[in-house]
Amino acid sequence: MINFTYYNPAKIIFGRDTEGEVGREVAKYGKKVLLHYGGGTIKKIGVYDKVVDALKAEGIEIIELGGVMPNPKLSLIQEGIKLCRDHQVDFILAVGGGSTIDSAKAIAVGVPYAGDVWDFYMNGAQAKEALPIGVVLTIPAAGSESSDSSVVTKEEGELKRYYGTHLMIPKFAILNPETTCYLPDYQTACGAADIIAHLMERYFTQVDHVDFTDRMIEAALRTMLSYTPLVLTDPKNYDHRAEVMWTGTIAHNNLLNTGRIGDWASHDIEHEISGIYDIAHGAGLAIVFPAWMKYVYKENKDRFVQFATRVMNVDFAIDQQEVIIEESIRRLEDFYVKIGLPIRLSDINIQEERLKEMADKTVLGRGTVGNFKKLSAEDVYKILKLAL
Amino acid sequence: MINFTYYNPAKIIFGRDTEGEVGREVAKYGKKVLLHYGGGTIKKIGVYDKVVDALKAEGIEIIELGGVMPNPKLSLIQEGIKLCRDHQVDFILAVGGGSTIDSAKAIAVGVPYAGDVWDFYMNGAQAKEALPIGVVLTIPAAGSESSDSSVVTKEEGELKRYYGTHLMIPKFAILNPETTCYLPDYQTACGAADIIAHLMERYFTQVDHVDFTDRMIEAALRTMLSYTPLVLTDPKNYDHRAEVMWTGTIAHNNLLNTGRIGDWASHDIEHEISGIYDIAHGAGLAIVFPAWMKYVYKENKDRFVQFATRVMNVDFAIDQQEVIIEESIRRLEDFYVKIGLPIRLSDINIQEERLKEMADKTVLGRGTVGNFKKLSAEDVYKILKLAL
Repeated sequence: MINFTYYNPAKIIFGRDTEGEVGREVAKYGKKVLLHYGGGTIKKIGVYDKVVDALKAEGIEIIELGGVMPNPKLSLIQEGIKLCRDHQVDFILAVGGGSTIDSAKAIAVGVPYAGDVWDFYMNGAQAKEALPIGVVLTIPAAGSESSDSSVVTKEEGELKRYYGTHLMIPKFAILNPETTCYLPDYQTACGAADIIAHLMERYFTQVDHVDFTDRMIEAALRTMLSYTPLVLTDPKNYDHRAEVMWTGTIAHNNLLNTGRIGDWASHDIEHEISGIYDIAHGAGLAIVFPAWMKYVYKENKDRFVQFATRVMNVDFAIDQQEVIIEESIRRLEDFYVKIGLPIRLSDINIQEERLKEMADKTVLGRGTVGNFKKLSAEDVYKILKLAL
Repeated sequence: MINFTYYNPAKIIFGRDTEGEVGREVAKYGKKVLLHYGGGTIKKIGVYDKVVDALKAEGIEIIELGGVMPNPKLSLIQEGIKLCRDHQVDFILAVGGGSTIDSAKAIAVGVPYAGDVWDFYMNGAQAKEALPIGVVLTIPAAGSESSDSSVVTKEEGELKRYYGTHLMIPKFAILNPETTCYLPDYQTACGAADIIAHLMERYFTQVDHVDFTDRMIEAALRTMLSYTPLVLTDPKNYDHRAEVMWTGTIAHNNLLNTGRIGDWASHDIEHEISGIYDIAHGAGLAIVFPAWMKYVYKENKDRFVQFATRVMNVDFAIDQQEVIIEESIRRLEDFYVKIGLPIRLSDINIQEERLKEMADKTVLGRGTVGNFKKLSAEDVYKILKLAL
């Protein structure tokens, strides 16, 4: 276990009919809010009205900015920053999923910053202040509702990059599993794959003596492997949606990263795929992760055997390490297929042609990606070939 | 799963050589600190000097109050409150274990309160403000370093009572597993039993659909069952001490209580035993918990079977529910014996004589204790008889 600091002051308000609490929470921080969201879903499922009513009941003035797309775009963020400055907004409320929250986080650090907000994502700038953020979550997936990070896409050059600071941790997040009962199956499955990926990125570490956090991650993984298929079978089941929603938050609030170093190469590689092809992040992860596992497992077979036995229930004789590991990867692929996700690039009609370009862009500006094994552009290319 | 709010802003600084950070952390909140501790151990193991040096390096003035005893006493707390008022202390730093932290928490709410601090613990008063608290933890056990609660003993009447408010959550807690390598075996074992009890109090709930938090608690319980014997075999092993120390914090920071209602009868019953006999809290819990389990398991056999199979590895045929459950309780008792703890009142020379008095005092002012099964004084008496 390595030394760590753990700090997560996000207040989580979880359960049925909790959206109405948003007014009181926002009122603690501001009087003029940027209401940030994506498409029309939040209006269709009634969340928009509940939020607006709760804000108005507290006398909070609302400036709206909808239109966030999956893989949130820098141009809309820049529009949001201008809007906040023009109207002297003092709080940003994201209503939706990870893309909306990540967009809100970028706006929050961008407003008080004199330069271009992209500096944080690409050029090493560090935020010194930020507007406070709140969240009403309707899609369990990204974990952004209590995390300290965000991912943004710059359209010019199709670049998708990450930035994190504790200033981005939302002040509160309201999670009502009822709002997730309306999610289409494919989106539910993609969200589950994202949550599972957040857990596996943390699980596959080269730091040893991390058994307690291993076991917590395993607990979360087993919950996801159990409940995702149940949710798809019976989408309106509140109890099962609640298991997935709460797991999604804990998967990414950094508790499960304490004392260890996560990998994150699969996320970096996937970002280049969805940066170019605009496929769902979760679907991309279901394709990349098994390929990554096949490519790197020899770097630490013990860890992969532990994953196979404790998470995937592979109980072959322990001296057959590679057989055990390969079986566990097959079971993970079977799981993705069962919940309706692609597991190969060819499943989504991506062929060889731009693999080299994606591999080069993955390591652009950083030389290598990943910590479990440091991957060069050549390594990433081989992983993408395995994923074909 | 029931609706819940989860909020824990305590900053955890964990790892080797972390005590030196205490100065910078305290300086964020105050300039004059009450340095609160127990006996001479923190001086013997060098923690006292490190803390004082770090505080002085930041120009922080120190007022000292040592002498906290296990089961922290109201009289010393009142002395601390007076000291803080007289010297206009603006921060309380607890260095030690749960008793010291609980004493510090009581002082923190007592200083700005016009009435008697015992009002919070016995008479339903609610704190409106508190001095900020920080912790340097040297004994993993109580989980008080990031919890919102404390337990205090009033000498007159031998009354031990609980009070909790988010105002009591420490601003920071510094955890260096190295400092726990000096703990005597018995104290290590008692601390482990306390951590395990915090987990089991949360585990045994009548709320259903709490599988994710079940699995997280099971992860923590299995960590404790694995590493406590290893720590006793090789007390100076940092990695094993680290597993126990981090588990101890998470066991009691309320994450594992989200969406569920814990029981807490065993804690309430034990408080009366250690209130009268001044035995270690953890030893008392090793005695009370198995007796409580035997008395209540018929209220929800499924939950106890899940505990038996997932935590205690009992894999008998599933139609023998009572056989499975009784075996799991025997295995838990065997574990306590293995780590050197008593499992019967008679093991620590407590006989029948004051059981009735303890049972009556357990429910005094509240009618019943526990949530898994509401226990009357008569029920508590029967549990104490089972523990003889």
